[in-house]
Amino acid sequence: MNKIKVSIAGGSGYTGGELLRLLLFHPNIEVAQVTSEANVGKFIYKIHPNLRKSTQLKFSSINELEKCDLLFLCLPHGSSMNRIEEFKNIAERIIDLSGDFRLKDKEEFKKWYHHEHTNPAMLNEFVYGIPELHREKMKNAKLISSAGCNATTSILALYPLYKEGLIEEDRTVIEVKVGSSEGGNKSSDSSHHPERSGSVRSYMPVQHRHTAEIIQELSFGKKIEVHFSATSIDMVRGILATCHVFTKQPLEEKDLWKLYRKYYNDEPFIRIVKENEGIYRYPEPKLLIGTNYCDIGFKKDEFSNRFVIIASIDNLMKGAAGQALQAFNLMYGFNETTGLEFPGFHPI
Amino acid sequence: MNKIKVSIAGGSGYTGGELLRLLLFHPNIEVAQVTSEANVGKFIYKIHPNLRKSTQLKFSSINELEKCDLLFLCLPHGSSMNRIEEFKNIAERIIDLSGDFRLKDKEEFKKWYHHEHTNPAMLNEFVYGIPELHREKMKNAKLISSAGCNATTSILALYPLYKEGLIEEDRTVIEVKVGSSEGGNKSSDSSHHPERSGSVRSYMPVQHRHTAEIIQELSFGKKIEVHFSATSIDMVRGILATCHVFTKQPLEEKDLWKLYRKYYNDEPFIRIVKENEGIYRYPEPKLLIGTNYCDIGFKKDEFSNRFVIIASIDNLMKGAAGQALQAFNLMYGFNETTGLEFPGFHPI
Amino acid sequence: MNKIKVSIAGGSGYTGGELLRLLLFHPNIEVAQVTSEANVGKFIYKIHPNLRKSTQLKFSSINELEKCDLLFLCLPHGSSMNRIEEFKNIAERIIDLSGDFRLKDKEEFKKWYHHEHTNPAMLNEFVYGIPELHREKMKNAKLISSAGCNATTSILALYPLYKEGLIEEDRTVIEVKVGSSEGGNKSSDSSHHPERSGSVRSYMPVQHRHTAEIIQELSFGKKIEVHFSATSIDMVRGILATCHVFTKQPLEEKDLWKLYRKYYNDEPFIRIVKENEGIYRYPEPKLLIGTNYCDIGFKKDEFSNRFVIIASIDNLMKGAAGQALQAFNLMYGFNETTGLEFPGFHPI
Amino acid sequence: MNKIKVSIAGGSGYTGGELLRLLLFHPNIEVAQVTSEANVGKFIYKIHPNLRKSTQLKFSSINELEKCDLLFLCLPHGSSMNRIEEFKNIAERIIDLSGDFRLKDKEEFKKWYHHEHTNPAMLNEFVYGIPELHREKMKNAKLISSAGCNATTSILALYPLYKEGLIEEDRTVIEVKVGSSEGGNKSSDSSHHPERSGSVRSYMPVQHRHTAEIIQELSFGKKIEVHFSATSIDMVRGILATCHVFTKQPLEEKDLWKLYRKYYNDEPFIRIVKENEGIYRYPEPKLLIGTNYCDIGFKKDEFSNRFVIIASIDNLMKGAAGQALQAFNLMYGFNETTGLEFPGFHPI
Repeated sequence: MNKIKVSIAGGSGYTGGELLRLLLFHPNIEVAQVTSEANVGKFIYKIHPNLRKSTQLKFSSINELEKCDLLFLCLPHGSSMNRIEEFKNIAERIIDLSGDFRLKDKEEFKKWYHHEHTNPAMLNEFVYGIPELHREKMKNAKLISSAGCNATTSILALYPLYKEGLIEEDRTVIEVKVGSSEGGNKSSDSSHHPERSGSVRSYMPVQHRHTAEIIQELSFGKKIEVHFSATSIDMVRGILATCHVFTKQPLEEKDLWKLYRKYYNDEPFIRIVKENEGIYRYPEPKLLIGTNYCDIGFKKDEFSNRFVIIASIDNLMKGAAGQALQAFNLMYGFNETTGLEFPGFHPI
Repeated sequence: MNKIKVSIAGGSGYTGGELLRLLLFHPNIEVAQVTSEANVGKFIYKIHPNLRKSTQLKFSSINELEKCDLLFLCLPHGSSMNRIEEFKNIAERIIDLSGDFRLKDKEEFKKWYHHEHTNPAMLNEFVYGIPELHREKMKNAKLISSAGCNATTSILALYPLYKEGLIEEDRTVIEVKVGSSEGGNKSSDSSHHPERSGSVRSYMPVQHRHTAEIIQELSFGKKIEVHFSATSIDMVRGILATCHVFTKQPLEEKDLWKLYRKYYNDEPFIRIVKENEGIYRYPEPKLLIGTNYCDIGFKKDEFSNRFVIIASIDNLMKGAAGQALQAFNLMYGFNETTGLEFPGFHPI
Repeated sequence: MNKIKVSIAGGSGYTGGELLRLLLFHPNIEVAQVTSEANVGKFIYKIHPNLRKSTQLKFSSINELEKCDLLFLCLPHGSSMNRIEEFKNIAERIIDLSGDFRLKDKEEFKKWYHHEHTNPAMLNEFVYGIPELHREKMKNAKLISSAGCNATTSILALYPLYKEGLIEEDRTVIEVKVGSSEGGNKSSDSSHHPERSGSVRSYMPVQHRHTAEIIQELSFGKKIEVHFSATSIDMVRGILATCHVFTKQPLEEKDLWKLYRKYYNDEPFIRIVKENEGIYRYPEPKLLIGTNYCDIGFKKDEFSNRFVIIASIDNLMKGAAGQALQAFNLMYGFNETTGLEFPGFHPI
Repeated sequence: MNKIKVSIAGGSGYTGGELLRLLLFHPNIEVAQVTSEANVGKFIYKIHPNLRKSTQLKFSSINELEKCDLLFLCLPHGSSMNRIEEFKNIAERIIDLSGDFRLKDKEEFKKWYHHEHTNPAMLNEFVYGIPELHREKMKNAKLISSAGCNATTSILALYPLYKEGLIEEDRTVIEVKVGSSEGGNKSSDSSHHPERSGSVRSYMPVQHRHTAEIIQELSFGKKIEVHFSATSIDMVRGILATCHVFTKQPLEEKDLWKLYRKYYNDEPFIRIVKENEGIYRYPEPKLLIGTNYCDIGFKKDEFSNRFVIIASIDNLMKGAAGQALQAFNLMYGFNETTGLEFPGFHPI
């Protein structure tokens, strides 16, 4: 069988690098070009040293991109929306890993991104990139917008509860603990190791952009409020979302077991993690490093109508490159897990 | 002036060790005895190696305790309540760092600790150990019960808001990030370094005992609900509490500035930390390692009636040994900051 | 093609768990049984939670082991030598990951292990497990003894220099920095997170047993001395060996380039890492987590006849499970890299 | 008694910040000015947030420095030597924490710093800043040059052995493990958290400048060679030096006990750390965070004439600010430990 010819626009960052790693080992993919304006002509493994001996590819310029079957966009915020027409001439299919085309409503975009969208007409042409919610649409999609990493974790954690209307719509509090790779590969004073090491930093206590995606995907026609905060901890990869929800009716843990099994039992990348003994009783990001899993657990508060829903992913995998490849597999009819079989390490 | 003669019952643990370190450098204190049943006769610096060259004291048995002016209790759960009469014969004044005498209501004790209190009559004889709330009572107290570390952080974070009745009483969500020293000095499978390192572990998503203290101290005659979760992260010392509160009336950040200044401006160990630039804009536990400070910051959610209140302490200092020494200073009329002047490190 | 039927004796530890992970994803292997006396009948994923959804296998007892093609031994020190005859009845081929059969000389064994070997007659029946040194012998071997992790790193770092007789035989100093997984999965006071986190601990400044393997493999008929120390740092997986060697004749860096290329250019799992710019100029263990690579770099001291040779591996992979699977591939004539293609992460 | 009036030239870096913290709590010191060209007029606690509530001082310009009793120089490399005459007009006494005046020989300076010294005539006017070696000279010194952090650790570790001529002069190998604060407060790609976290980086395998200081201080008229390497690990503060020395005559551990006690028993900041049981048997940097101690231990290699000498300090304290304050105390006849009593934390 012919391989699918793909390129990556914007391959020097962490998301682009991890995506390239996955693509190089996918049996049905041929990587044609990877761009980086700052590194044109340089071996890719000079920037992504894990790829030493895995590829001899060099970075191209984005202006030299040749026709390919599918183009992955891993560009900084704003680049995709400004050049999307150009990219459509290069590839019939596009998966955009930036935030440019995640929201459907240009007013919401402006509210959360603090400026106008430059191509609002196309907002509805993209399928929102979480396969567990939009699998069928993806199979025929030409344009997919991968979801934000915090949004992915939160949405998967809460989707069954909101879908079934079981929780109070305006009370949910989501507190995510995130690693430093989420901030990208640009160094700054606050990412300087002596300052960032050991830190527990409230980098976005309110108004995080990913909140808009969560509201969009979990509203189901109702007005909902999601109270989101993000705290950076001393970790490179990984997200743990602790979601506090309040049920309308009394529910027991066995009700949630049933609910989550109903929605996720056939999902290849979702595991319900809830043990009564042992070390790892709830989801933990370190077990998910490099995997495409989203682990989900929960616990009932015996003294109130609160449940705590705990979910975890690797932000660069299920939250970015892995999710994008899962979408790719769906678009082309490959087994959804192809190239994403890695199970994670123990210990790590 | 004569020094106050103090002893520590239970000095091999982390709290006892840190308390001893503070006492050794306090100008008005003479440390008489420090007990540890497992280490009787052993130099204390063999267990607390930071004290090499600082003390030649050896551990005693608790059964050999001699009369002293004040006895600090750093014993495991349950020991204080069972032996309190005995300890009262040893010292007229007692500061208990365990959880045995924190709650006033024996029913609440049973609800959260899952067994009957063995000395309920004495519950009301102890002053709850947070100086910022109970300073006047402490000055004449014979018995003080130091507060739980998570409770201390949460209570100080929210005290002005609850006291003034500004927030919805049943909606507060508190999510604390804690270090491994909170679990004590006993090794276990889950504290084994390869398993614990890098972990982000939902060790107590609901039903944490410290919740009872928070409710007790913040109720002010009303029925309140506090939705508390604790997550362990890869850190040894420190707590960051992210508190989501919902105001009854619209409030601006300047209102909270006024409120917190009113309550805390004269407090020697509380700092309001809220910067618009620089690396450290909100409280961070690593800056507080070894200090007795509680740093508090806040941020308004522009899209709802939520405020996020962020507070941080060192669990072994303001959350245990430091808080106890601050209470000691109050009991004896010393300057409240004596022996607690350490400002913290940068970088660390 | 029929799959090779393999079992693991001793599968609850870190080495056994990582080996199982590799075997489950190897296209030519069927895993029959995995033993753990403490966990008989328990799902393996309860102990190795990364394998949730990857296997439904349960632990067996070692006494229930059935015939298989090859048996991997991941047992504690002493078990292999005492039960080897029994294991030979179970499988014609054995790969032992313990230290029992690494040394050829029973006197050397006694010197370094402080007791007599209980089956000295078999010491010479095992092939020492580093493929880069003993590839041809492995192809027909029935019994292979995987090398110690620190020994593997040191031997691969220095093999070309000792083989060619270029360095002073008695002056080499090797200083390895190791992670906590090297100590196994048993918790102890010294592995308790608050004590072990952040530690830089001289756990074996002299007399490390792996030294005997290094001397055995690098002597080439001469008497050599290797001055070895191991320091534990705050890391779970990984080894960095810094080797100080002193050349007999003046050598330039280009001479070492030639030398290392001659020995290792065709090796699938060795990379020479020596860059003049960028972040990762020499080998680093974090880039090797999960890979079977040994990265090797070097630097000339301009003011003396010293070269510093720097080598790194993942102790659980190239230093244990990966090395064993590489040997397996050689024994059965599979491509040497089968099941070992994972390139490592960036960032991590 | 009048306080000594001191200023700091260059106070925005880590060394200047830690020095300021110490000075603020020294009972005999008044801090007059602290300079930072990039932060003139800004509150110092904006840069060193640990000092919130400890000082209301603002940064001055170096050009506004007023007369004071003693000036500390914490300037970047090259600044001290170029402006030393100017500084001498400001203060009669100077303690320079940079590397500019550590070496006595301008040829050695050029060899290790790769350029000419601009004020070689003054090289011999500075006392080299390790009190344990040059205490008497310091008492009357006007100019002191604080020692390099790695040099301090190495010199204190080996001083008794070299002084007594007990070890082979050309064989010593020193391997130091260092934290990220040693690199200063300027962010870079290699200090970016996702790249620096978890790294074990051979940042200076050969030709480290501090080697020159070690040779200068340990030669005692003989030609010696010291083979030095530095490896960065995931730690902010701290140095562990593992020194491999080879004795001329057979020596036992008891001989080294005697030797080190003879040299160091009366030293207030040196502790011999060598235990046969417990967790902390040798020096560990984490126990020394914030202290002015240098802990030293050793171990005999039973199979050769090697001893391993292990020493540890906090690079910002005994390796910089603490050492400078100790020198200050000597210059003014204060108790050598004034302001340096902090014993360190356990756990941390």
